[in-house]
Amino acid sequence: MYELINKVKEINPLVLHYTNEVTINDCANVTLALGASPLMSYSDEEVQEIVSVANSIVINIGTMNSSRLNLFVEAGKTANKFNKPVILDPVGVFATKTRSDFTNKLLNEIKFDVVKGNISEIKFIGGLDVRGKGVDSFDDNEDNSEVVKRVANKLGSIIVATGKVDYISDGESVIKIKNGTVKLKSITGTGCMTGSLIGSYLGAYDTLVNSKEEITISKLEAVAMGVLTMGVSGELADINNIAIGSFKEKLMNNVYEMNVDKLKEYARFE
Amino acid sequence: MYELINKVKEINPLVLHYTNEVTINDCANVTLALGASPLMSYSDEEVQEIVSVANSIVINIGTMNSSRLNLFVEAGKTANKFNKPVILDPVGVFATKTRSDFTNKLLNEIKFDVVKGNISEIKFIGGLDVRGKGVDSFDDNEDNSEVVKRVANKLGSIIVATGKVDYISDGESVIKIKNGTVKLKSITGTGCMTGSLIGSYLGAYDTLVNSKEEITISKLEAVAMGVLTMGVSGELADINNIAIGSFKEKLMNNVYEMNVDKLKEYARFE
Amino acid sequence: MYELINKVKEINPLVLHYTNEVTINDCANVTLALGASPLMSYSDEEVQEIVSVANSIVINIGTMNSSRLNLFVEAGKTANKFNKPVILDPVGVFATKTRSDFTNKLLNEIKFDVVKGNISEIKFIGGLDVRGKGVDSFDDNEDNSEVVKRVANKLGSIIVATGKVDYISDGESVIKIKNGTVKLKSITGTGCMTGSLIGSYLGAYDTLVNSKEEITISKLEAVAMGVLTMGVSGELADINNIAIGSFKEKLMNNVYEMNVDKLKEYARFE
Repeated sequence: MYELINKVKEINPLVLHYTNEVTINDCANVTLALGASPLMSYSDEEVQEIVSVANSIVINIGTMNSSRLNLFVEAGKTANKFNKPVILDPVGVFATKTRSDFTNKLLNEIKFDVVKGNISEIKFIGGLDVRGKGVDSFDDNEDNSEVVKRVANKLGSIIVATGKVDYISDGESVIKIKNGTVKLKSITGTGCMTGSLIGSYLGAYDTLVNSKEEITISKLEAVAMGVLTMGVSGELADINNIAIGSFKEKLMNNVYEMNVDKLKEYARFE
Repeated sequence: MYELINKVKEINPLVLHYTNEVTINDCANVTLALGASPLMSYSDEEVQEIVSVANSIVINIGTMNSSRLNLFVEAGKTANKFNKPVILDPVGVFATKTRSDFTNKLLNEIKFDVVKGNISEIKFIGGLDVRGKGVDSFDDNEDNSEVVKRVANKLGSIIVATGKVDYISDGESVIKIKNGTVKLKSITGTGCMTGSLIGSYLGAYDTLVNSKEEITISKLEAVAMGVLTMGVSGELADINNIAIGSFKEKLMNNVYEMNVDKLKEYARFE
Repeated sequence: MYELINKVKEINPLVLHYTNEVTINDCANVTLALGASPLMSYSDEEVQEIVSVANSIVINIGTMNSSRLNLFVEAGKTANKFNKPVILDPVGVFATKTRSDFTNKLLNEIKFDVVKGNISEIKFIGGLDVRGKGVDSFDDNEDNSEVVKRVANKLGSIIVATGKVDYISDGESVIKIKNGTVKLKSITGTGCMTGSLIGSYLGAYDTLVNSKEEITISKLEAVAMGVLTMGVSGELADINNIAIGSFKEKLMNNVYEMNVDKLKEYARFE
């Protein structure tokens, strides 16, 4: 499974982002760091052309508003039309009715390959009760395997729920990853960047599938690679418990220097 | 007064930003660095909901245009309705008539708790003559105590005027802070980030006031804490006169590591 | 020619950017690092006022869409009206028909002093065949002197084509710069930042021309200074082949610390 990181660097998938203005630079840089090609667009006009040449599409609602809804829906539907993997990050979906309505419209119109959020966001989307504050609430003190399976089955998507333990499920299997550091919550954008990493791996995975090459990794594992890369990179970046300015720099360094050996050595599944 | 920094980390106030696209990432990170929670929004639709749960609101006109005016006015009026502290940063107000008209509309419709700018911006808002270039003009070679008092009384807001010496006034008292480094003008966003820090402290302060806890700090001091945190952090970051890429990283580190003892040791009031 | 860097720090030209949301912060910081003043605007309302006081205007289509077209056209035409140097960066022009239409409209309505892109973008604009992927395709294994001369003559602009070798041509002469590092392609924004550096140098150059001071540098060389500053800074930043988080920081440091002596020592022309 770890070898997919080499395929990303080889295939150099084009990861098209429809994302927020807060972390857009970080998302572009982390995509480059892993070896993929980022492309950021806010243009309704180029959706058809650009989705058709992308290898994956990441939709992130961080600074959504009604003028973006049509763009995001059109991008997602076009991704479905061209059979491109499409990922949703419903940032802060539980924070306002506006965000949950926006997310519902996206979920109703688009078939997402992956829906990624923190555990509060995933629970909310699954119709479970959450108490949230801002866009980064967590509820980490219980096993959420059944929750993510249920939401995965409900949406027909692979679900990624991040937290102290990260859960990735397709409704049948659950991968649980225990890497990471609390400091990933002390800088903005690590959640969004995880979406970019998932997009990069899925873009490579999809290219392999279409090339009829023999593949020894499942789609669920390809998604988990994105989460794992962020977790291990964060962990390695925080070895000396550095302050957040330096942590952000080292996080990027560690994604850039991530490889099969490090993933093998440091990955901690449960 | 310095203990308010611990309250920020404890209360973790939600600081809602309506801000520019240039420094939006820096503002989110500095808010996190201090221990508060940033939320950035460009959505007209969620103003009511989101202002009602925020602890403070920061409005920054850096890349304002007419399509943002209604959003900003609505956000500010909603802040007033819910009695949430609201801060204005009129970036470059003297640079164009468009910016001054925009600022006037905001000042007419909204009662701001704080108006923060560099001394040129504050003078301009106060109806005094300024000569400015771009968005960062300074006029530092005189005592501006009377200026900020006058503008504070005129607007009925706490005024923060940054420069070689920073002035904070509620129209009666003036706090003068001499911390900082010229290098704070060599990276973009330090002014905007000061607004985020003020928002973080005021969000904590307002929570304390509403909780009827005994408070040993005035609102003016709470605002000054934001200015002081930036000044001391900048000063400590620049001890070895490093270049600006490293300075930006160290500035974030220093905000993250700021505490009561450091503030006590390094604060220089006049 | 190298002394122009001192003039930038002395004159402190105001470089007005109409640019994308991905790298807008980097563009502001690199402009400050060199010693110029950045101003970013998305406001139709202030175009006339703000262009009239700017020393140069940079237009970058990275996240263009139809709502930006009028703003960009108006800004460019106003620059022409006031005889201000104006630079176009047609990011990813070959990636979609939308981008090439957008670029054509800009080229038809505005007389650009400089059009800067990677070699694929420049070839595309010149009507030559390119195969591109995303916004960063390169074709470096041939001498492109004739290409840039031809495109310069076709557009009546100075052409900058970046790649393993950078070409700068006014249609007669060609300056070829061999500085740089492949790592400049591993972080986002180095192309956009090169546009900001060109804008800074051209802003200073234009001020000198208008001041009737004796000038010992040509406009072509002033443009080349922007490309050279990025190339040498990148090269120096990458001496120890560091990872990209650190590289970005060191790149900014090196622009900030660039001076006549370093340019003399490290510049490699062909």
